[in-house]
Amino acid sequence: MIVDIHGHYTTVPPGVEAYRGAQIAQMGAPTKGKMNVTDDEIRKSIEDGQLKFQRERGTDVTLFSPRASWMGHHFGGELISRYWIEQTNDLIYRVCNLYPENFVGVCQLPQTPSDPLANCIRELDRCVSQLGFIGCNLNPDPSGGYWGAPPLTDRYWYPFYEKMIDLDVPAMVHVSASCNPSFHATGAHYINADTTAFMQFIQADLFKDLPALRMIIPHGGGGVPYHWGRYRGLAQDMKRPLLADMIRNNVFFDTCVYHQAGIDLLTKIVPVDNILFGSEMVGAVRGIDPETGQYYDDTKRYIDAAPTLTAADRNKIFEANARRVYPRINAKL
Amino acid sequence: MIVDIHGHYTTVPPGVEAYRGAQIAQMGAPTKGKMNVTDDEIRKSIEDGQLKFQRERGTDVTLFSPRASWMGHHFGGELISRYWIEQTNDLIYRVCNLYPENFVGVCQLPQTPSDPLANCIRELDRCVSQLGFIGCNLNPDPSGGYWGAPPLTDRYWYPFYEKMIDLDVPAMVHVSASCNPSFHATGAHYINADTTAFMQFIQADLFKDLPALRMIIPHGGGGVPYHWGRYRGLAQDMKRPLLADMIRNNVFFDTCVYHQAGIDLLTKIVPVDNILFGSEMVGAVRGIDPETGQYYDDTKRYIDAAPTLTAADRNKIFEANARRVYPRINAKL
Repeated sequence: MIVDIHGHYTTVPPGVEAYRGAQIAQMGAPTKGKMNVTDDEIRKSIEDGQLKFQRERGTDVTLFSPRASWMGHHFGGELISRYWIEQTNDLIYRVCNLYPENFVGVCQLPQTPSDPLANCIRELDRCVSQLGFIGCNLNPDPSGGYWGAPPLTDRYWYPFYEKMIDLDVPAMVHVSASCNPSFHATGAHYINADTTAFMQFIQADLFKDLPALRMIIPHGGGGVPYHWGRYRGLAQDMKRPLLADMIRNNVFFDTCVYHQAGIDLLTKIVPVDNILFGSEMVGAVRGIDPETGQYYDDTKRYIDAAPTLTAADRNKIFEANARRVYPRINAKL
Repeated sequence: MIVDIHGHYTTVPPGVEAYRGAQIAQMGAPTKGKMNVTDDEIRKSIEDGQLKFQRERGTDVTLFSPRASWMGHHFGGELISRYWIEQTNDLIYRVCNLYPENFVGVCQLPQTPSDPLANCIRELDRCVSQLGFIGCNLNPDPSGGYWGAPPLTDRYWYPFYEKMIDLDVPAMVHVSASCNPSFHATGAHYINADTTAFMQFIQADLFKDLPALRMIIPHGGGGVPYHWGRYRGLAQDMKRPLLADMIRNNVFFDTCVYHQAGIDLLTKIVPVDNILFGSEMVGAVRGIDPETGQYYDDTKRYIDAAPTLTAADRNKIFEANARRVYPRINAKL
């Protein structure tokens, strides 16, 4: 079985954007209202998108969450975010009910900057306990490119982490759109956030305090595996734990790296127990690579071709690690 | 000959920090004053530091600039920055005069946020025309981690770029300290800035407008080579030029990547004409890698061992590319 742990619902029917658009006029008096999307619209958007690619590429199940670049925590206040997030998580729930063999839910969170984490704790609980979701996306920068939140290692986040542990679900560290003109969203902000989160983890005792906490750093860990020597050296100079020890039970990288040489480096350098298969299709890069004739984001091909991996390694990356990091998936498969 | 294009004076005598410290009390009425550093102090700091490592590692010449993490453009107003930058550039000049065989000057710039670029143009001219420097470090984020400046492709920067072209000197894109608790300076802010700058270059027509402009992205290009497929794909989706065409005469990566697998990826993926040898010693990572028994930042060893490079490739990386990108070096060697 091949589990893709990184998929967002990027091919949504127009009712989703219409709902969001209407929120702009409601900022003074938000109402939850209704998201006008039919089951038939969902079926079409999924069958022409995710499901088609799952079949073509030979993957089985996608951990599916709302579109990351649309999380948009920078927009509006507490109620705006809460309604938007609840509606879009409910939409994922509908997808998972329509295609229970192909999708398992992962939620986004109402991380309005400056609002209490209590809303996030409540929404995580609702999604896991009532909707059967198995993980969440946690935005380290709800300001959208201005980085005003405390580092992920700050005790500010601990009540949320305790809820994650209580529910036995991990978080993928994933930013949303960039409002800062310096940072292209998928070309800079995403990769920067991944790199930033990993360095934050090196600097503090988060996983010593919360040994059951599990975090996935997407996009192949940002710039980290390429600079693995730099991070090993920085940790050493700072008298911090060895990277391999620090990440062992707590930090995982996906395989959203869109060329063979990058995946070869990832799979050579990072312990195989800490790598989870992901593609983020249909996502940041949608074209076909003229050098290979295949989609850039068909990352399964790169894993299949990575020279240092054994069959047992591939089984870990494709399935076994996902079962360990997202244990609630076992009841779904 | 082996030219290390990325060295900062990180082992300065205590008079440098004392000068900076005194500026805190002068913020209301800055005076240029004097930096109390003797030639003997310079000799000792260089011979115990940079020069010792040059000899041990078998490199010949270092392009030498003031310490990057101390550029500190976020601190103080126009005069504070101007005095600090002039003093430290003059200090580099003294090093280069004491060791003309071993060091060639690269300047920092008085990039006070919100102050006009005219000061930077004037200081670049002074350093190149009067002190014999051959390049500069350009900070894309003078705010120190809050990213308030326009992207490097904005016309705001063009008058400075025109001066660079006029003087035939390149810029290394290099941030300084991070004031933002989210970003560790050398572990996140540096790598993020490299990634950010490259994506900015993809998005705009900077090098079409200014074909003689040359920019070096340090630290092996941040996260870019590891994600080369992502950037090729993003450029393709955005109908931008091929990366190889975009960088050819304009964008160069150094080799400050502190493990063999990283250098192997860099030298395999990035055209060899766009790679310049750099180590950034004595810099961000000062320890010895227990896996190799060698300094992490002894990057010459990795270039020597990179499997895809020929002798001609190594000559380009170690010397010929530096002569082309920093043409004023030819009068110095």
